[in-house]
Amino acid sequence: METVLRSASREVVISPQHPFCIIGERINPTGRKLFQEQLRRGDLSRIEIDVAQQLAGGAMVLDVNMGAPLADEAELMVAAVKLIQGLTDLPLCIDSSIVEVLDAGLAAYEGKALVNSVTAEDERLEAILPLVKKYGAAVIALPNDEKEIPEDPRQRLDLARKIIDVATGRFGIPAEDIVIDPLAMPVGADTSLVVKTMETISLLREEFGVNTTLGASNVSFGMPDRHAIGAAFLPMAIATGLTSAILDARAPQIVRAVQAADLLLDRDPWGASWIAAHRAAQAQAQQAQRAQEQAAT
Amino acid sequence: METVLRSASREVVISPQHPFCIIGERINPTGRKLFQEQLRRGDLSRIEIDVAQQLAGGAMVLDVNMGAPLADEAELMVAAVKLIQGLTDLPLCIDSSIVEVLDAGLAAYEGKALVNSVTAEDERLEAILPLVKKYGAAVIALPNDEKEIPEDPRQRLDLARKIIDVATGRFGIPAEDIVIDPLAMPVGADTSLVVKTMETISLLREEFGVNTTLGASNVSFGMPDRHAIGAAFLPMAIATGLTSAILDARAPQIVRAVQAADLLLDRDPWGASWIAAHRAAQAQAQQAQRAQEQAAT
Repeated sequence: METVLRSASREVVISPQHPFCIIGERINPTGRKLFQEQLRRGDLSRIEIDVAQQLAGGAMVLDVNMGAPLADEAELMVAAVKLIQGLTDLPLCIDSSIVEVLDAGLAAYEGKALVNSVTAEDERLEAILPLVKKYGAAVIALPNDEKEIPEDPRQRLDLARKIIDVATGRFGIPAEDIVIDPLAMPVGADTSLVVKTMETISLLREEFGVNTTLGASNVSFGMPDRHAIGAAFLPMAIATGLTSAILDARAPQIVRAVQAADLLLDRDPWGASWIAAHRAAQAQAQQAQRAQEQAAT
Repeated sequence: METVLRSASREVVISPQHPFCIIGERINPTGRKLFQEQLRRGDLSRIEIDVAQQLAGGAMVLDVNMGAPLADEAELMVAAVKLIQGLTDLPLCIDSSIVEVLDAGLAAYEGKALVNSVTAEDERLEAILPLVKKYGAAVIALPNDEKEIPEDPRQRLDLARKIIDVATGRFGIPAEDIVIDPLAMPVGADTSLVVKTMETISLLREEFGVNTTLGASNVSFGMPDRHAIGAAFLPMAIATGLTSAILDARAPQIVRAVQAADLLLDRDPWGASWIAAHRAAQAQAQQAQRAQEQAAT
């Protein structure tokens, strides 16, 4: 199944036959005080840096979240979407928990966006799926409902089925435009949780064949050497069927692990991307060294 | 299924419920001219360094190969086995293509060794399995025969079945003492080869439940950034069912990837080993820095 996302001029396909889709997650003021203050003042200059860094790191889609307290999030989302679409042709993932913000962001967006996110809660389904349909977008769906975030992979599958049934049956959204999040939980909280995430990925692939995504950094939360954990987790999850992830593309160890998984799973013809990325990193290192030598003379 | 290996005083278990078994591969003169010359002179001092490095890197079993041209390999193997068993209590993997060398090494070894290796060739089965039985050892088995190294995972499975049938039926070797090598091929030669290795691992697990091992460095042969490829490959292979690998434990990126896979697959209770390894690395880094500072004053 192929989930096609578009900007005004570029198309990105999420599918098991395509290179793994890296959704860059840094354009988000959560936990960043200075960025929040800038946004409240209407200063969007930090976004340009974040976009450039995610692009340089290898992001293929950019997640945009403007959740700053005391700011007009809808207005910021519109401004951010317009700014970013002027900076890059990567498709965007419009990310908010507020329906009006999603609506405003989607209205401002040129192309076919990814909406982050809907859950299996009836109220959220009723509020968000009409927007997804109206704007012809794709949507990330989390298999939790009013009652719980189920641990059991079979229960997650049931909630995913509910979302897919409602989205396709009631709202006419094609199944390929629903990207299910199998729910990545911190291994540090309970060492059995990642196994359940992996089982959920595998079940989703077998039962529905839908594309999947998750917040890759959740898995290593609270543990030391987080990048080493992420760099091992993603290849395992990709081999199990995961087709995209939301991650900070500034971590070369993690991006390289994803590229290696593409190579090993035969999604990088002749290893051309692997070798090109290696050469680019080499050229960059040489350039940095030359600059250092010049500065020293 | 549990493959139990033993030295005189230590037991190591290979199984999907245990931490992944790292078989350190450096005690081998292949491609090392100086080491070969030393061995021809009867100088085994290099082995002490190699053993210490593999131990420090996290090896749990040590592969010992004494294949130096123009040397008496059987004599060297006996000397090496005795030397190494005086240096460490890790179980050994006796590695040679020459039956007499395996025999001599196994006779000198105290404990239950792993034999590297037998194939599905009739002549090799007849020559090596009696030794495995005689010494109560375990054995690595490669699913290739006189005709070919099959690419098709189903054909590899058929050859694995032949080896298991002959070993258990004719020689009374228990199935748990047969460790099948699914044959890791270079992704640089053909980007579809690793997928076939993974399929073979998966089939071996489903059909026989036997333990598996492979030469981890083969996969990245001929490609740049080999450690990054190995560090992505092993977590994928482990998630698919691989239970041990022969690798050079001097590569921290690869060993750390294996430890992360253990953590993520719930084989590291409370993440205790992960955290301990992190602290040890930190302490080592601090010590190195202090030594550097002292040297500078």
